[in-house]
Order: sequence, then structure tokens, then C-alpha cells
Amino acid sequence: MRPSGRKLSEMRPISIETGVTKHAEGSCLIKVGETHVLCTASLEEKAPPFLKGTGKGWVTAEYGMLPRATHTRNRREAAAGKQSGRTQEIQRLIGRALRAGFDTRALGERQITIDCDVIQADGGTRCASITGGWVALRLAVNKLLKSGQISTDPILDHVAAVSCGIYAGQPVLDLDYLEDSEAGTDGNFILTGSAKLIEVQMSAEGATFSRTEMGQLLDLAEAGIAELVAAQKAAVA
Amino acid sequence: MRPSGRKLSEMRPISIETGVTKHAEGSCLIKVGETHVLCTASLEEKAPPFLKGTGKGWVTAEYGMLPRATHTRNRREAAAGKQSGRTQEIQRLIGRALRAGFDTRALGERQITIDCDVIQADGGTRCASITGGWVALRLAVNKLLKSGQISTDPILDHVAAVSCGIYAGQPVLDLDYLEDSEAGTDGNFILTGSAKLIEVQMSAEGATFSRTEMGQLLDLAEAGIAELVAAQKAAVA
Amino acid sequence: MRPSGRKLSEMRPISIETGVTKHAEGSCLIKVGETHVLCTASLEEKAPPFLKGTGKGWVTAEYGMLPRATHTRNRREAAAGKQSGRTQEIQRLIGRALRAGFDTRALGERQITIDCDVIQADGGTRCASITGGWVALRLAVNKLLKSGQISTDPILDHVAAVSCGIYAGQPVLDLDYLEDSEAGTDGNFILTGSAKLIEVQMSAEGATFSRTEMGQLLDLAEAGIAELVAAQKAAVA
Amino acid sequence: MRPSGRKLSEMRPISIETGVTKHAEGSCLIKVGETHVLCTASLEEKAPPFLKGTGKGWVTAEYGMLPRATHTRNRREAAAGKQSGRTQEIQRLIGRALRAGFDTRALGERQITIDCDVIQADGGTRCASITGGWVALRLAVNKLLKSGQISTDPILDHVAAVSCGIYAGQPVLDLDYLEDSEAGTDGNFILTGSAKLIEVQMSAEGATFSRTEMGQLLDLAEAGIAELVAAQKAAVA
Amino acid sequence: MRPSGRKLSEMRPISIETGVTKHAEGSCLIKVGETHVLCTASLEEKAPPFLKGTGKGWVTAEYGMLPRATHTRNRREAAAGKQSGRTQEIQRLIGRALRAGFDTRALGERQITIDCDVIQADGGTRCASITGGWVALRLAVNKLLKSGQISTDPILDHVAAVSCGIYAGQPVLDLDYLEDSEAGTDGNFILTGSAKLIEVQMSAEGATFSRTEMGQLLDLAEAGIAELVAAQKAAVA
Amino acid sequence: MRPSGRKLSEMRPISIETGVTKHAEGSCLIKVGETHVLCTASLEEKAPPFLKGTGKGWVTAEYGMLPRATHTRNRREAAAGKQSGRTQEIQRLIGRALRAGFDTRALGERQITIDCDVIQADGGTRCASITGGWVALRLAVNKLLKSGQISTDPILDHVAAVSCGIYAGQPVLDLDYLEDSEAGTDGNFILTGSAKLIEVQMSAEGATFSRTEMGQLLDLAEAGIAELVAAQKAAVA
Repeated sequence: MRPSGRKLSEMRPISIETGVTKHAEGSCLIKVGETHVLCTASLEEKAPPFLKGTGKGWVTAEYGMLPRATHTRNRREAAAGKQSGRTQEIQRLIGRALRAGFDTRALGERQITIDCDVIQADGGTRCASITGGWVALRLAVNKLLKSGQISTDPILDHVAAVSCGIYAGQPVLDLDYLEDSEAGTDGNFILTGSAKLIEVQMSAEGATFSRTEMGQLLDLAEAGIAELVAAQKAAVA
Repeated sequence: MRPSGRKLSEMRPISIETGVTKHAEGSCLIKVGETHVLCTASLEEKAPPFLKGTGKGWVTAEYGMLPRATHTRNRREAAAGKQSGRTQEIQRLIGRALRAGFDTRALGERQITIDCDVIQADGGTRCASITGGWVALRLAVNKLLKSGQISTDPILDHVAAVSCGIYAGQPVLDLDYLEDSEAGTDGNFILTGSAKLIEVQMSAEGATFSRTEMGQLLDLAEAGIAELVAAQKAAVA
Repeated sequence: MRPSGRKLSEMRPISIETGVTKHAEGSCLIKVGETHVLCTASLEEKAPPFLKGTGKGWVTAEYGMLPRATHTRNRREAAAGKQSGRTQEIQRLIGRALRAGFDTRALGERQITIDCDVIQADGGTRCASITGGWVALRLAVNKLLKSGQISTDPILDHVAAVSCGIYAGQPVLDLDYLEDSEAGTDGNFILTGSAKLIEVQMSAEGATFSRTEMGQLLDLAEAGIAELVAAQKAAVA
Repeated sequence: MRPSGRKLSEMRPISIETGVTKHAEGSCLIKVGETHVLCTASLEEKAPPFLKGTGKGWVTAEYGMLPRATHTRNRREAAAGKQSGRTQEIQRLIGRALRAGFDTRALGERQITIDCDVIQADGGTRCASITGGWVALRLAVNKLLKSGQISTDPILDHVAAVSCGIYAGQPVLDLDYLEDSEAGTDGNFILTGSAKLIEVQMSAEGATFSRTEMGQLLDLAEAGIAELVAAQKAAVA
Repeated sequence: MRPSGRKLSEMRPISIETGVTKHAEGSCLIKVGETHVLCTASLEEKAPPFLKGTGKGWVTAEYGMLPRATHTRNRREAAAGKQSGRTQEIQRLIGRALRAGFDTRALGERQITIDCDVIQADGGTRCASITGGWVALRLAVNKLLKSGQISTDPILDHVAAVSCGIYAGQPVLDLDYLEDSEAGTDGNFILTGSAKLIEVQMSAEGATFSRTEMGQLLDLAEAGIAELVAAQKAAVA
Repeated sequence: MRPSGRKLSEMRPISIETGVTKHAEGSCLIKVGETHVLCTASLEEKAPPFLKGTGKGWVTAEYGMLPRATHTRNRREAAAGKQSGRTQEIQRLIGRALRAGFDTRALGERQITIDCDVIQADGGTRCASITGGWVALRLAVNKLLKSGQISTDPILDHVAAVSCGIYAGQPVLDLDYLEDSEAGTDGNFILTGSAKLIEVQMSAEGATFSRTEMGQLLDLAEAGIAELVAAQKAAVA
């Protein structure tokens, strides 16, 4: 029934390749099916101004899409002279999600910037960015721990994200582009490695949804997140 | 226990005054406690370019905050030369919410723009904007129906929004600014007049939340929405 | 002869309501007929950089118009990404006018920002902004005097503004929108409470004017300003 | 008593050289003392969109200052990414002034853009821009008349401008930079060749002014304008 | 003597992988040593406005660098709100180079946009962009030929680019980042497959260079280009 | 054969008038035929931030074109809100060229900004800007030497620039606008007073060029530069 032939509760193949760029303190290329996102973590030995003197650090994120990551070419945001509302909304979400599982005090007055650049898009780019962004963050933090710059691990748990939705009347896991364009209701679910909720965003387009449907999507999301966390573990092992 | 002395499930006083500006096709000043938002609906006899020739219209929204709506003055976005990510995220949400309960085909190739300008802020400005924005939209649509420009009511149901959160360990309804700054978990709930879900956005800051807590907040939200919808009905009667 | 039925030398009804927003150090909603402007004064305990170390403070102003303050919706300046030339010209005028009756040395190294936001426009918004802006400034300064932060009153006199013009061949006081669009010559007159001149801006469109006409408009302006100053006095009493 | 040794009612030397740039339809370099402005008129065979189909044309103006026209270098507006409020206010004034003595219907659906670029500044750049801008406009219109593209002269009269002010307690004509920085009250006066008023802008800084002083400055302005108009006549002869 | 241990006339390893992104009409990932650039070609069935009705098409290019392509993170241009002068200079160069070996008439009224996004930078990113951009262009044109949309091949010859410079007193081929930062003189050389010159840009920093040195660098460039062209041929075979 | 009737190796008449603006530390108006550029040097007693504490100064350049310097009016970059890629490319080139013949250490922690504003354009504006910019720089540095602010001359040699190209199959010196628009190959050549090369930029449009042609153009350029340097010497004598 799904365009890809997947089962309702079937994730797309997940691949996370680490160390893909030599300059970044942490990096990975995450592929969730045909959605490919390059995630890098950049460490700065200085916290943003609003944290000066607090002993706390910060994790922030930026998101971009290469102009031809999509079916037809999108205008380059740098050429347009500004980031779209969508881009800003997504990068705020990524940063918020990663900070939810992070102890900024243990980082000290440093900043880690996670850049998520979509190389190829097929739905779910914000979820892949969060899942891959966590891996880049993990690798950068490992370096700080190894070098002794910090002694307590600021990462409290895994953070991963997946989208689910009602497609053709059925709850399905991990929407691809075709499903996403058709789904009347969909949501992004961000969970920790221990299946606790960090962020839930569900939205209906031209329809409404019920609490029962919310529950079905959450069940699917929990299963998907478990797979994603396993892939994260394998990648950083 | 709440700073305002309210009970856990108690909304702030709601007031919706209509017809507050003489030029707009629809307008209201909504007050939810000390949060005051001026909402206007502006009709244009032309749909946006991407709908040309489809027979469908559009509802969109813009959001702004007067510089001194807040405790300390914020820089005017027009002077800064751009809308913040927060502003864009909010206005996208308002537009999406209002369209969820709206039949764009019944509107014909017209556009209605809902402007939500926060005169005074005390938490929950995006929810008040949605609730008040619906009233402005309702009034503008009434005019179109009355004049015979359209014959089918494009408004399918009420749309209203409220925030809930876990404050001091307890689920509370309709967060004010003090509660919002302290809440570890909070969410915005957008529902129809018949208590169906349109959008749910829950988010943890420095904590996680459980499905049980989600349920408690949803229960509160349903009760709050019922009050808001009653206020909408009274306002447009 | 006037569209509103007013006499040539008749002002529109003036109303100034103070304390309309709880966060600002001073605020009022001024209504001159159907022109409604919300004015707030925001105090900052720091002068702008160019006054650092001089012992002097500053009064500045910003002006905005809600998108649907006018007959048809105007594009939101924050969305357009810049303030129009008209907006900048008006806010420079408001700041200059208010400083003319102000001793910046008596304020000390502080800054007061007057925000004038037009809720509804029917001609004369810049004049209403100046008249109402003075009230907001007066209230903020009263607070500083009462708290003992300053001991000398920096406000030297009232400042108020009114527009006059040649409409249908006759000099008329306090132009509304209909008159303003038709007037071949019009001007803005800013005076002190003791009827001294601060700024005069007269301009012909598609016509010229004589010194005799200048005199007639000035006579009208003096009478109108007296009414506005009386309203200011009543408001801040 | 004046820094330059001029008499109270003495203009600076005026020089208007025409034909200074080979591409423009009209051009001049106007020098009023040490203030030098290059004015060009550019004809476009198309009116701006808001006049389409009306049979009317338009005259508009743009103003700029070379970065080192002033004592210390100013940031280039193109590099800053926007025109300052002062620049916009001045170019709006120039356009308005030139249109006041112009019959846009006689021009037909064309646009003439007057560019006024300050090569060297010593006070009074906006007045020199108007006076020189009129010469460039006159030359461009002459070309249209000569070629038969238009048959009725759209220029109704000369337009010229001069500043006057109260300097060291005395009314003086044609302020230079030193006087302008010190003057408590000053004004810009735009008149036609037949001494009718087009625009008067008087402004006090840290002082107020009286109607008697207004009259004195207007007397001076009328005398100065006569000299400027004579120079315009000589230049375009 | 070279930091990398390469011989003076030794290129870095070249790798060109095609078909790396599924949406673009042509794409490759070019690696010249540690410099990695993703090049995509996007076809639009419409020429830019200035070519409308001429029967000619256009090839243009855009260039970007991921924020962490470099040793330390660079600010994202989309977030900064504009493309730097360097970025604009490079993308103009890429477009000009590719058009030099291209018959825009044979393309018909179409546009092909080449996006060159630097994933990892180690010197020579503009040269790699041109060399890889040509491959993406070749693949997109092949599609048009195969589908019969065009019948004459608009590509006249290969286009490839390499940098050379005087490093530690010696002429060297294909500068990497370390060499590039130290070289007193360096240049970019763009040649066709038949070793004809398209563009030469040589520049001294803190030194000058002689015509003899120009000749030596050109000799090196010719050799390097031959290798690059061979790699292009292999890639598109 | 050349549109102007010049011989293949004939420069246009060169004129360099110094001291053309009273505020700048150095200034000249350079005319190369009908191309006229006003060049000013502005001294700031402070180096840019990246040189703080190094004892070195900086020379930088900005370039602009008056809107009607060209055949048809160009949009004012300040009004457009940004400098074009072409403008940025040119001003980067001017700054780089002038620094190549300059000892920034001998300047001390100061900055000299060279503004090159094109009053009238007829091809070769960037070359005229460099040649004239050097004169403005020389005059500003002379002032520093004369006043004793610096004791070592930071200017190492003359810097001048000229364009050459293949026009109608022949190598020609100093292209004017008509030749520039037609030339298949052209280049800008920046040399020192002792004929050493600083920068060479050669580019083919719709053609390619050979090393022999490069040599011919270089020969012409060397001859042209000698004339330009002689004009510089005469101007600053």
C-alpha cells in the first residue's frame, strides 16, 4: 500500500557514516532511505554572550538544503539574502532537541554548533538532521573528554527523531516524500534513548486527528526511534 | 500554588471585543488575562499566484509584537530589517491552524490575511492570536456571505488554542509569563469547536515528559478550549 | 463644506487615555477623531554611545503603522525587511520635536524611546504621535522624578502638533484623511505649550502657496495646539 | 560676524556648469560655495506602474553623497546595504519640489529621474540638489521638445531652494557647514521663479522661534532664490 | 620540499564520481586531494529574461561552501544574509568559464544552473568547481541529446581549471591550502581540452612576478589540465 | 580600424588632476579618454581589527558608479540594498593591486581607504581606478611623511593598470567601451613602475586565446603602463 512497498511500521534503511569531513570535531553522513544529510559539529572555546560568566555552554544548530537536493531546484538561500521561515523553524527545533538531552554546565563555557546540510531530500530531513546531529555532537564531545578538556559527559542520553503520519487512512512510520505530500496528519517525534519524549509536533492539513490516532503514531514512533538509536550506537562505537 | 493564585485547571479571564478598527473586514481585541492581541482580517479579491486558476482561495497570517509589549523593550523588527525566527514560526502556525478549519474552495480565488499584533504580552500570545484570529476571520467571512459574494460558508468549525504545561511538578492550564518561563514541559494545543485536534506541539526544556503527562495536558487543553470557543461564540453572536 | 461637517477652525474630538499598557514606563492611547495611536515611553539606564561620558541623555522615537490601520492593507514593514522612507522621515520628526522641549542634561545618561504605533489611521498620524508621545514621555519622566533618580525636570514645556491645509480653497484646521488627500497645500505645525514654534513643514502639491496663506494656517495651528495642550494637561493631571 | 566674512544677506558664489557628463539627457555641476553637486536627468520612455494608462508621466529623484564628500569619511550606503533615513528624506523632498513646478500630463507616459550626487559638502546640499536638479530637468525636457517627442512644455516655472537660519542671534542667508552646525533655528525654502512658495521646512534645535523670525528668514530666502533663479537662467540660456 | 611531499609538477589524486544525487539532471562529486566539491546541473525549460526571443540559452553557476568545509567554521552565508564578495567572484568565474566552451544557441531557450558546493576545502576549490561543473554540465546535456530535446551538442570542448604558484621560490602545480597561504604569486588557469586558454588570473601578494614565471606556471598548468581532462573523460564515459 | 581612429598601440589621452576635493587626504580626477573616475584617499588613525597589535596598517578600496555614468541609467546600488558581484570584484581587485606595491608595516596601525567613483564610463573603469587610486594614495602618504607621522615611505613603487584585448582580430591597447563590448578576448594588466607584474586577468568570451596572443597583449600593456606611470609622476610632482 505504501509507494515504497514498505510495511506500515517499517523504517527506511538507515546508514550513518562517521568521520566524513576532516576539519570538523565530529561529523557524519546520515542516510535514511534517499534522504541524505551531512552533519558536522564545530567546537568554539567560547560561549555565546548571554552565557558569559555563568559557567554554562551552549549547543546550537543551523540547517540548510543544497539547491538541488530536491526534485526541482530551489533558490539558494544565501543568494536570496535570507533564510526562509521553514529553515529557521527547523534549525531552532534541532538545537532545542539536542539541548534537551544535554547538560550545558558540564560543557563549560564552550559552544558546539551542529550544521545539518541536506545533500538529497526525500522527506524527513529535519528528523534525519536531529538523529545525525546527535552523532556529530557525540563525536565532538568524545574528543573533549579524551583530551581532558572536560571531565563529565554532558550528553545525558541519545536523542533521535522520526516522522509518522496517517497515510491513506493508515498510521505509517517514517514518511518519505510521496507519503508526506499526501498525509492529512503527520508529526515529528523526538525521543531519548530511553524512550522519553522531548518534543512532539503533530499537525493536520485539511483534516483533524483524534487522541487515538496520536497514540497509534506515538507507538510507531517509539519503535522507529529504537532502530535509530541502535544505528547511532553502532556508528559511534 | 500558581503565581496568579489560579487553580490548576483555571483559565485566565477571556474577553473578546469585536469591531475595534473601522477599516478591517473583521477585527477583534482579544484579552486572555494580561495578554492583549489585536487581530484584523483583510480581504483581497485575488488569490496568491500559486493558486491562480484553481478556484481556491487562501488564508494566511502575520504576527508582530509592539516593541514595548514586553517587560523590557524589544527591538522593532522593521528597524532590525527582518522578522525573527520566532515570529516566522508563530505566523506560520497561525495560518496553518486557521486553514485547518477552512474550505479554501468555498472562498473562491480570494485571500484573507489575518494580522495578529500583540499590544501587551504575558504568555500565550500565539494561542491568543489563533483564538482571536479565528474571530476576525469569522467576521470577514460573514461579510462575504451577507453581501452574497460567496454562498457557502468556508468556515468548517471553530479553531482555538491554549497552552498547558508542567509547572512546579503539576499540570496546569493556560500558562502566563511567569509559569511559562519556569515550566520544564509545555505545549500548545489547537483544537476545533468539536474538540478535534488540529495541532499539538509539546516540548521539554531541560527535562523529558511521558505519555501520561501528555494525556493530562490534553485533558486540560480540551477543557480550556471549550471556554475559549464559548467566548468566540459570544463575541460573534 | 468639510466632509465631516466640521467648521473651518474646528478640531476633531481629542481623547488621551493614559496607562494603557502595563510594562511601559509611560503610555497613552491618543485619539484625534478616527486616528488612534498607541504611544509608549521606554526608559533605558544608558545613553546611546555618542553621548557616553557627556552627562547627557537622549530622547528618540520610532513610528509604525499596523498593516490594517489603513483603508486597504499595507505590507508589514518587518516582512518587507525595511522601514519606508516615509516611516523614517516621521520618526526622525517625532524625536526632533520632543527633544526641542527637553533638557537632555537634566535626564543624565539615560535614554527614553518613544514608540508610536498607529492602530487606526484617518490623517494626521504624525501629529497625533507627537502630541501623544509627549504625554508618554511626561509620564516616564514623572516616574524618574518621583523615585528621585533625577531631581530637575528635563521637560521644558509641552510639545504638540497639528496639521492645517488649504482645502477647497479655504484654510482648515486638523485635516482628516479625506481632506488631506485633496488639499493642495498642507503643513504640520509643532509648537510648545507657550505657543512658540518648534517646527513648521509646509508643502504644496500641484500648486503653490503665499505668505498670507502661511499666516492663516499658522493662526489656525495656534488655536488647535492650545486645545491639544489642554488635553495633554488633563491627561497627565 | 559670519565665519566666511559674508554679509547677513550674502549668498555664496553660485556656479552652474551644464553638459558635464556625456550620457545623461541633461546634466550640470552646481557649486554653491564649497558645496558641489553633480545633477543628471535620465529619461525613460515608460512611466512607473502606478501611472500606467493615465497619460501622465513622473519626475523622481535620488540623492547620494560620495563617501569622502565630508570632513571625515562616511560609510558608503551601498556597502551598508541601505540608504539612511536622511538620504531618503532628502530625495523625497527633491522629487516633490521638482514635481510642484511640473505638469506630468504634458510629459506623457515617461519618467525622468534626477540623480543628485554630492561630490563635496559644505552645508546646503539638499538645496543645491534642487536648484541644480531643476537645471538638469530643464535640459532633458528641452531635448524632448526639440525632438518633437512632446509639444507642450511640462515645466511651469523655475524651482530653486536655499537655506536660511538664525546664526549667532542674527538671520543669515545660505548657511554653510559651520553656520549650519551652530544655528539654533534653520529652514529650507523652496520657491518658484515667480517667488511663490512650494515648500517651507523650519526647525529649531534646542530653541524655539517666533513668527517674526519666520518672516525675516522668508525675506532672506526670497532674495537668495532670485539670485539662484538668475543663475539657472544663465546656465540654460 | 612541498608539504605534501609531492613533486613540483605533481597533481593531487583526482577522483570524479558521477550520479551522486538522484534529482539533478547531472551531478558529480569531484575530489582533488582533500578538496571535495559536489557539482549539480539543473535544467530549466526557460532562458533568463534577457535572452527571451533570441533562441539562445544560458549556463550559469552558483558556488557555496558548507560552514565547516574549512579549518575553522565560517559563518553560513544564508544566515549572514548575503554572499561574500569572494563567493560572488568565484561563481561569476565558474559561469564564464563554462560558457566559454559552450554554444548557447545549440541549447535553445533553456537554462542550466551549475551548483558547486564545497563539502571539504583544502585549496583550489574554484578550480575543482569548474572541472567538476563541466562534468555535471556534460551529463545534463547528454540527457537532452538522448531525449532528442536538442540535436546539436552545445558543448564545444572540455573545460578544466588548475591553480599554480611560486611556492618557496619554485613553480608548483595544483596548490593545496598550505601552499596557497604561503605562495607569493599564484594563478588560476582555465583551459579547454585542446589546451587553448579561456581564462588566466595571476596575482602577486607582497611580491611581483615576471613574464618568465608566467611562462613556467603556464607550462605546469597545461600538464595539469591534461590530467584533469583525462579524468573528466573517464568519468563521463 | 578602431572605432576611435586610434592606432593599435595608442592609449587614449590621459589626464590626472589632483586636489579636486578639499576634505580628502589625497584626491584626483583621472580621465582616460571619456572614462572619468574621482579617486579619494581617506586616512583613519586605526587599523582594521584583524591587524590590531601587529604594528601593520592596511590599504583598502571601494568602488562605485554614479547611476548615470553609463549609456542608460543603472539602478543605484544603495537603493538596491547591495553592491553587485561586479562591484565587489572590482573593489577587491583595486585594494589588492594597491597593497602589492605597499609596505603595510611602514604605515603603522593606520588605514587608508581609496574610494573610486566613476563619474563617466567608457570602458576601463577598473584600470583607471587603480591608476588614479595610486595617485590619491601617494598624496595621502606624502602628507603623513611631511607631518612626520611616519618616517619610512610605505609606497614601494608605482602601480598602474591598463586593459588590452583582441579586437577585430588585432591586439589593441586600452579598450574603450565599443571595443570592450566586441572583444573576444581581453585582459587587465596591473604593473609596477618598473614593469613588474602584479596581476594579470585574461578572459575569453565565446572564443579562446593562445600564449602568443597573451604575449602580444602583455607587450602592449607594458607600453601603456609606461605612459600611465609618466602621467602619475607628472601629477604628483
